[in-house]
Amino acid sequence: MNSWYVREDAFAPSTNDQNNHATLPSIKQVRSQETVFTIGNGYFCTRGTFEEGYPRATGATLLYGVFAAVPIAREELANVPDWTAIKLFVNGERFHLEQGTILEYQRELNLRNGELRRSVLWQSASGIQVRITAERFASLAEEHLGALRYSVTLQDAPGQQPVAITLRASIESGQGNYDLMHWETVDQRHNRELIWLHSQTKTSNVQLAQAMSFSLTTPGLAAKFRQELLDSDLAPGIHVYGTLAPGETLTAEKIVTMYTSRDGVADIVRAAMTQLEKLVQVPELAQPHLQVPDPPQTPEITSTSIYEQLLAASADAWEQYWEQADIVIEGDEQAQLGLRYNLYQLRINASAHDSRYSIAAKGLTGFGYRGHIFHDTEIFMLPFFSYVLPDIARNLLLYRYHLLPAARAKAARSGCEGAQYPWESALNGEEMTPPAIVHPETGELIAVLNGSLELHITASISHATWEYYQISGDDDFLRNYGTELLLSTAHYWASRATLDEKRGDYVINNVIGPDEWHEHVHSNSYTNAMARHTIEVALQAWRWLQTDAPDKARALQEYLGIDEAQFAHWQTIAQGLRILQDPQTGLIEQFEGFFKLAPFDQSKYEGRTDSYQAILGMEEVQQYQIIKQADVLMLLTLLREQFDRQTKKVNWDYYYPITDHDYGSSLTPALHVILASELGEREAGYKRFMQGALVDLENLRGNTPEGVHLACSGAVWQAAVLGIAGLRVTEDGYTTAPIWPDGWTRLAFNFCHKGKRVHVDLRRQDA
Amino acid sequence: MNSWYVREDAFAPSTNDQNNHATLPSIKQVRSQETVFTIGNGYFCTRGTFEEGYPRATGATLLYGVFAAVPIAREELANVPDWTAIKLFVNGERFHLEQGTILEYQRELNLRNGELRRSVLWQSASGIQVRITAERFASLAEEHLGALRYSVTLQDAPGQQPVAITLRASIESGQGNYDLMHWETVDQRHNRELIWLHSQTKTSNVQLAQAMSFSLTTPGLAAKFRQELLDSDLAPGIHVYGTLAPGETLTAEKIVTMYTSRDGVADIVRAAMTQLEKLVQVPELAQPHLQVPDPPQTPEITSTSIYEQLLAASADAWEQYWEQADIVIEGDEQAQLGLRYNLYQLRINASAHDSRYSIAAKGLTGFGYRGHIFHDTEIFMLPFFSYVLPDIARNLLLYRYHLLPAARAKAARSGCEGAQYPWESALNGEEMTPPAIVHPETGELIAVLNGSLELHITASISHATWEYYQISGDDDFLRNYGTELLLSTAHYWASRATLDEKRGDYVINNVIGPDEWHEHVHSNSYTNAMARHTIEVALQAWRWLQTDAPDKARALQEYLGIDEAQFAHWQTIAQGLRILQDPQTGLIEQFEGFFKLAPFDQSKYEGRTDSYQAILGMEEVQQYQIIKQADVLMLLTLLREQFDRQTKKVNWDYYYPITDHDYGSSLTPALHVILASELGEREAGYKRFMQGALVDLENLRGNTPEGVHLACSGAVWQAAVLGIAGLRVTEDGYTTAPIWPDGWTRLAFNFCHKGKRVHVDLRRQDA
Repeated sequence: MNSWYVREDAFAPSTNDQNNHATLPSIKQVRSQETVFTIGNGYFCTRGTFEEGYPRATGATLLYGVFAAVPIAREELANVPDWTAIKLFVNGERFHLEQGTILEYQRELNLRNGELRRSVLWQSASGIQVRITAERFASLAEEHLGALRYSVTLQDAPGQQPVAITLRASIESGQGNYDLMHWETVDQRHNRELIWLHSQTKTSNVQLAQAMSFSLTTPGLAAKFRQELLDSDLAPGIHVYGTLAPGETLTAEKIVTMYTSRDGVADIVRAAMTQLEKLVQVPELAQPHLQVPDPPQTPEITSTSIYEQLLAASADAWEQYWEQADIVIEGDEQAQLGLRYNLYQLRINASAHDSRYSIAAKGLTGFGYRGHIFHDTEIFMLPFFSYVLPDIARNLLLYRYHLLPAARAKAARSGCEGAQYPWESALNGEEMTPPAIVHPETGELIAVLNGSLELHITASISHATWEYYQISGDDDFLRNYGTELLLSTAHYWASRATLDEKRGDYVINNVIGPDEWHEHVHSNSYTNAMARHTIEVALQAWRWLQTDAPDKARALQEYLGIDEAQFAHWQTIAQGLRILQDPQTGLIEQFEGFFKLAPFDQSKYEGRTDSYQAILGMEEVQQYQIIKQADVLMLLTLLREQFDRQTKKVNWDYYYPITDHDYGSSLTPALHVILASELGEREAGYKRFMQGALVDLENLRGNTPEGVHLACSGAVWQAAVLGIAGLRVTEDGYTTAPIWPDGWTRLAFNFCHKGKRVHVDLRRQDA
Repeated sequence: MNSWYVREDAFAPSTNDQNNHATLPSIKQVRSQETVFTIGNGYFCTRGTFEEGYPRATGATLLYGVFAAVPIAREELANVPDWTAIKLFVNGERFHLEQGTILEYQRELNLRNGELRRSVLWQSASGIQVRITAERFASLAEEHLGALRYSVTLQDAPGQQPVAITLRASIESGQGNYDLMHWETVDQRHNRELIWLHSQTKTSNVQLAQAMSFSLTTPGLAAKFRQELLDSDLAPGIHVYGTLAPGETLTAEKIVTMYTSRDGVADIVRAAMTQLEKLVQVPELAQPHLQVPDPPQTPEITSTSIYEQLLAASADAWEQYWEQADIVIEGDEQAQLGLRYNLYQLRINASAHDSRYSIAAKGLTGFGYRGHIFHDTEIFMLPFFSYVLPDIARNLLLYRYHLLPAARAKAARSGCEGAQYPWESALNGEEMTPPAIVHPETGELIAVLNGSLELHITASISHATWEYYQISGDDDFLRNYGTELLLSTAHYWASRATLDEKRGDYVINNVIGPDEWHEHVHSNSYTNAMARHTIEVALQAWRWLQTDAPDKARALQEYLGIDEAQFAHWQTIAQGLRILQDPQTGLIEQFEGFFKLAPFDQSKYEGRTDSYQAILGMEEVQQYQIIKQADVLMLLTLLREQFDRQTKKVNWDYYYPITDHDYGSSLTPALHVILASELGEREAGYKRFMQGALVDLENLRGNTPEGVHLACSGAVWQAAVLGIAGLRVTEDGYTTAPIWPDGWTRLAFNFCHKGKRVHVDLRRQDA
């Protein structure tokens, strides 16, 4: 079974070079694979950039919630000094993939234990052959810890002479988000064979300590190799150098700990050094990191493999994760691997305990969307956590709860009441979407309306809150946080809706729905139905709270300044919110006037490699009935209990064909699978499932270099469990209704219902 | 005489701390002084940032014409890896000005020889007292060379015990323009005791090699100290460490060479290493920088002062410069020092030989205006070069000549003919002014109209071209370059002007004049008169060329596709261009309707610390007769031979009082001195002269942190020579008409007229 390994068997994915010359991949391919081979543990992720560097590579280690200020976009996750750097010199020749000759190459990510491994047989310009093996992981057992093992075997040398080998291991400051640097060095020292670097962000006052060891673990070579510490503000390091005879292998291990001022420890340097000293068994000094005189001492070469010990602990933690989260598919290895890869991403990008930040659109895997949080989290990812890892789901919702004050301020600035969540959110909950950006090349102004018009995120959050409560039965959460959040968002919708005096119903005008190719629309059915849902569940939660904790309910009512008369009014609004549905056919109009737009002939654009928006421009695409992503169909998916099969069928038939599944939004292809399965659209369902499952492994959207598509990861879990398996949780149990894709013979998974873990193992009967 | 030294006698310029605690300067003060203490030689400048670093410091070394791409502003001078870095550790305690106690502090820039020197008596937290002296210069004799000398004296130590001293000297990569990094390391190696770093810009493919030596020059200490080379991509360095007894002094010298791919050498690393090897007398190896095996060798400690030898050569070059450029003022030391400081800046920011780039608004001294070139160069700085250093003036004009193709393309895009120069120019001559910017905090869109409306720069360039020719008599220049430039710009103006059929004259509508507080104006008198002047001198040059080189003239006419009929038409336009001048009084209206704007009562704003534009906003300031800078008065200054005294007087009386001299543009205060002197406005003249002379030394505008005001430097030279001394060059000689400020007893200077250097020595008769 290979379905635990993501593999790359050549450095250049494909070559048309007839002369058999070594071909280098494009920088886009390199960067895409850097994203794919990201390791992480929820505290940090590190992109799969090579230890030795590569021209125009975009290496990054991003820490959960560690931000710095930027122009226009306001805040972004700040790429920290690189803990993975190791440079290799062979008789003074530097190892670089773009120089010399690559004779063999393999890279693989082991999803089961989170370890990334690369093996290269490289020949230098002067004809020396070395095999280089680099392994690394971010410990899931100990989130402050990263470990790397680096081996060099002298495979062949001209005249079979020994060869001088130097390894320079360092922590490299001067890393940027692309070219933008966020850190400056505060201090750097060493203690015996350990070095540390203390950095701070220039603009947000986050402190970071990184401590590092680098030790030879080949005892027989101890006499032939020397180690040297190098103090430096920018690249403190440890060098190992000596000579290697043909056939010999040199192995060294680099262990790094990281602490930041967000961790709540008094002295981050001490915390990083103390942890590292324990791991590598260096006796602690009285004040280890402050009173060591120069010059540096030459450390001893050790012979135990700390790497192996640490990996075993991390692998145990991964094993526990997979026991809870894994989905077994039999009969379709590609689907199995793709699905597991997405489950891997959902884990490495979510903190196990931090509710001050949430999961960004690209998690910690790249610079795309700058670490900002969108409705991607609540609509696409949260179901996975609510069903599988409810403790994390609770933290993700607490993040939104903590930011209610900022959401109230945003509502007030819009002339509304209650709480309006920002379209893009970071640490302080303020709107991070800039009102406009300047095209970097043409200088053209591009208005960005999402921050002011794309309101539905406020309903996404209440929907996810209620869904979490339904699955988890977490009364404590609803009592202390959830009800307040639901009432505050309901209050917003009630204040945002206006009475159409002519028709006597309520409308929400001038919005952008999930389909972002139509702006300034009125009565977006998705937005209105989700607003109605918000008010309904808020009032349901309120009634529950009145019974469950009457004192708490009274205090909350007073705090929020709302009374029963208002609740009654909200109820009226909810019932009166305009949903553009034909009572005969059940067909829902996406927004007022959508059906009057010109039909769009997609057949003219066969073979296109870009979205219709990119091809037509934003002005023109708005004129047509062509949509970027599920909108009405998303409504029918999220509130699927409220609509009958006939309604789903008629809307599917209308909207599915006019959606740009290939180059529109990456969010919804996999989400379509839930409806597809209900309607028995087996082929369409499988196609969209795979489109979601492979979006990053095969860089289907072309933008994997900027990070993985985490909404897709969440949608793929939903597609498998809520779609293909057809799981429906009821008050006292659950049902399944599997729609088997070709070849699938088994589908097994776990979920957690009101604190009880349930194992579902579906086997195909007709196979 | 102290008027050669810019001094700073305390680290914190002022303190209100009653408890006598050490007070740190604000980061703005630190950055302003970094600008003030910039050293340079026209090939590069290095800001006066401390060797040991300082939190939020903005260190920079900028090289003439070395650019990288940036969003929105398109291109900027790219701050290179820092060659000055030296970190000092005293018994493991790190020397930082913001830590420990500063007992004595002095910094001085010697304008005479270009050397910057800092001396600090510092006490560490543990009570060790060291005197640190750091000296540095950019060699004016050898432009690729920077040198630094660093001394540490152990003044006092608890128990009079010896103290461990470590100096870490390095070339620090990871430098940014503020936070934006432009360079990545290509390679780094060492050869014996020298190290080198090869970097390249990420976006513009400029290659840079920096080579460095760092040697102890205290022979008695050789036995007690060791040196160590540190290879590193980010901060390759040389460390010196050992112990110092009380009273002992350790001195080390850091010599750095720099070459870029703009230098036209085949191998920049070899060029940098070869030069450095010669300087520090290391025998050259066959392939010095490529075949050195690891590990590094420990270098010998040398005892000769390379620094002294190199400084002497540089001081000779400075002596030659001052012989040509110095202006002696007796009786006013502040004026003398301020003036010399500006002459120093004019030299360090101008290349002696490179005509592919020109002098930016901030030269190479800071990030302001990103190294772009404005009319600051032609109107404010060029007269100094034309009169004093004509070879450099010629190169500055050749820069514009080389970029005629881009200027023709800009004219064509505007629907015009001929050549229209960009408002902001960099390497390729395209318009660098973005059409709009987004406010980084509010996200508000700010339109930038200068690139499309501020046309007068095209006339500035023709004016400077003609003036250079008048002073230098450089027939070769006019023959091969100047006439083509003049005809091309004249062609632009003729095509840009339109006939007002009603009034029968020619107008240039919808422009911004020099006064940038009034946009979209019609018939700006300055622009029109300068356009007329362009056509007149172009035709004059053309007639000269027809006589001087008839073949050349014919070829040029054919190349430009213009004929005598067009010349006649241009003449008609020039004569007919509307200048809004009252024939009775001589008063000139700045633009159509200026006199109808409301008068502005400045008395309401006494004590303000910001410009009227900042106070009122751009919309409102346009409604008033309040102007940012000289506009009509600049016209009367530039074309001063064409206007009589009465005209100058009436316009001075009108415009001088309605100009925001304090917080409007920094460009014109000193330029006003020429008219002030002609009109006998002695007090106003002296005030504006000093405002220009001290603009950076006293950070009068608050923006010295972003770089010096080089237009001001040029204006101050004009103020002294063309204003206070009243120099007027005639066909066969010159006249002076000194207007002596209080206290001044002597004013002496040189200028160059048609290849002949003239010394003028004015002594006050009434003193």
